[in-house]
Amino acid sequence: MSIDTLVSGIHFFPDCDPASLGHKSLAVGLSDLAAVGAEPAWATLALTLPQADASWLNSFAEGLHQLACYHRLRLIGGDLTRGPLSISFQVMGFVAAGQGILRSGAKPGDAILVSGHLGDAGLALQQLLSAQSASHSPITIDPRVRARLERPTPRVELGLNLRGLASAAIDISDGLLADLGHLLEQSQCGADIECKRLPLSDAVAAVVHQQDQWSLPLSSGDDYELCFTVPRDKLAAVHEIAAAIACPVTVIGSITDQHGIRLLAEDGQPWHPDAQHAELTGFDHFRPSSSASD
Amino acid sequence: MSIDTLVSGIHFFPDCDPASLGHKSLAVGLSDLAAVGAEPAWATLALTLPQADASWLNSFAEGLHQLACYHRLRLIGGDLTRGPLSISFQVMGFVAAGQGILRSGAKPGDAILVSGHLGDAGLALQQLLSAQSASHSPITIDPRVRARLERPTPRVELGLNLRGLASAAIDISDGLLADLGHLLEQSQCGADIECKRLPLSDAVAAVVHQQDQWSLPLSSGDDYELCFTVPRDKLAAVHEIAAAIACPVTVIGSITDQHGIRLLAEDGQPWHPDAQHAELTGFDHFRPSSSASD
Repeated sequence: MSIDTLVSGIHFFPDCDPASLGHKSLAVGLSDLAAVGAEPAWATLALTLPQADASWLNSFAEGLHQLACYHRLRLIGGDLTRGPLSISFQVMGFVAAGQGILRSGAKPGDAILVSGHLGDAGLALQQLLSAQSASHSPITIDPRVRARLERPTPRVELGLNLRGLASAAIDISDGLLADLGHLLEQSQCGADIECKRLPLSDAVAAVVHQQDQWSLPLSSGDDYELCFTVPRDKLAAVHEIAAAIACPVTVIGSITDQHGIRLLAEDGQPWHPDAQHAELTGFDHFRPSSSASD
Repeated sequence: MSIDTLVSGIHFFPDCDPASLGHKSLAVGLSDLAAVGAEPAWATLALTLPQADASWLNSFAEGLHQLACYHRLRLIGGDLTRGPLSISFQVMGFVAAGQGILRSGAKPGDAILVSGHLGDAGLALQQLLSAQSASHSPITIDPRVRARLERPTPRVELGLNLRGLASAAIDISDGLLADLGHLLEQSQCGADIECKRLPLSDAVAAVVHQQDQWSLPLSSGDDYELCFTVPRDKLAAVHEIAAAIACPVTVIGSITDQHGIRLLAEDGQPWHPDAQHAELTGFDHFRPSSSASD
């Protein structure tokens, strides 16, 4: 079971397309089920709205309905209240006793992998914020990157297939470093991450290499990819399955017995982010911030 | 399973005592479990806060912890987000297959009962609103009545004991007429309600009889009592059990085969509320209103 709240103006723009919002608010919960290898079953929705707007509600419902149908998840109840726009989805899924993938099972030597690409959602958010503040010179927003922010793909099928293979897993909602940090804390170990191996879309790669913005793949949130660890002798099986379900996965580093995360620069040397990269410490829900990504 | 959201300024006063708020936000969910005769098991909490305030959070946690312990319910997870103060509790409970009390089982001839008293929470809200607007002449608020608004008692034990006895049940969150109306709609029948039988505390009885405020017991919300129907041959058993668990229950009318709710005045004649009693149509979440009871 997992519950998540998205608040207008904090987690999404108040004028966000309601169909995308319906999709995303459910996707966030499905991503949590994916991370433990659970099969989605039901959801309940607590929806708080300033007023009843039939057209908005229809679009919102359509967006969540499509994703729910795809994953054979049933919306079994909920609560509708009046107030500032806010969406809490509770999702429920099943996994056989002892088969769930935990955050606590990583062991030194395990490979660290991520699904998909990192940083697309963060880049889309940057572009949307720039577009908002630059009303006179419209900025082009890459639609593929934008879709990654607004309609993330929960990696449910990958999670189901990682049961018995992954030693630990977490979904990346708050940024790779923050979420991997949670996994390491639970597993009581550390990690070496090779920056050159981070899987980047062309759009993110361009920004990273032209503007040294490593914070995009390392600490921007909302990607909803899985970060998971795999004993080396099961890596081949994971790559085989990932290919079979057409879900890209990439080895980005190794679990170590030294606590903390060590970043290795493109030359393989340890990289200590300076003050300019202070944002690489990850996401804190109550850190003062004006960004909509909190 | 049940999910409910309480929003600051809509469901509670922004300066509400946080311990009471912790109690109430969980009680609302427990009341839903009570209405189906389920045994409370777990809860998840989606808490949205403008800022992290340790003292407020400690009190809030203490209030919900006490009620959770009393009902042996475990808080198993949740989500903490930044935004306008809002609390969504999802509660989960168990009831043996086929044993749950539904809204759809009432039959003509069944007695209609309610637990406890009706209208206390509505009266407390009236008094609090009066006290807010009359800052120069402080209004005394009856502490027993106020506790009924701020620390409602979910009728969990009664609900468990009504399995196999009640033909239908619902909890009264939006007012007797509104919630009984939902039960009647699901059961496809109607009801005669004898106003003189409505169980009233001394405080509510005084207001009802001096000011003709029948809206208090009939349509004010937040009492979280159970309204349930019982075949006549099981009434004695229900009264026996209610006495054993020290939970007052009162017969207030009968299920009929005529759709709708008929109110019978104190003289036994049908009473048709006039425009002055327009509020007797019950609660509508999106009816324009300045009251905090919505």
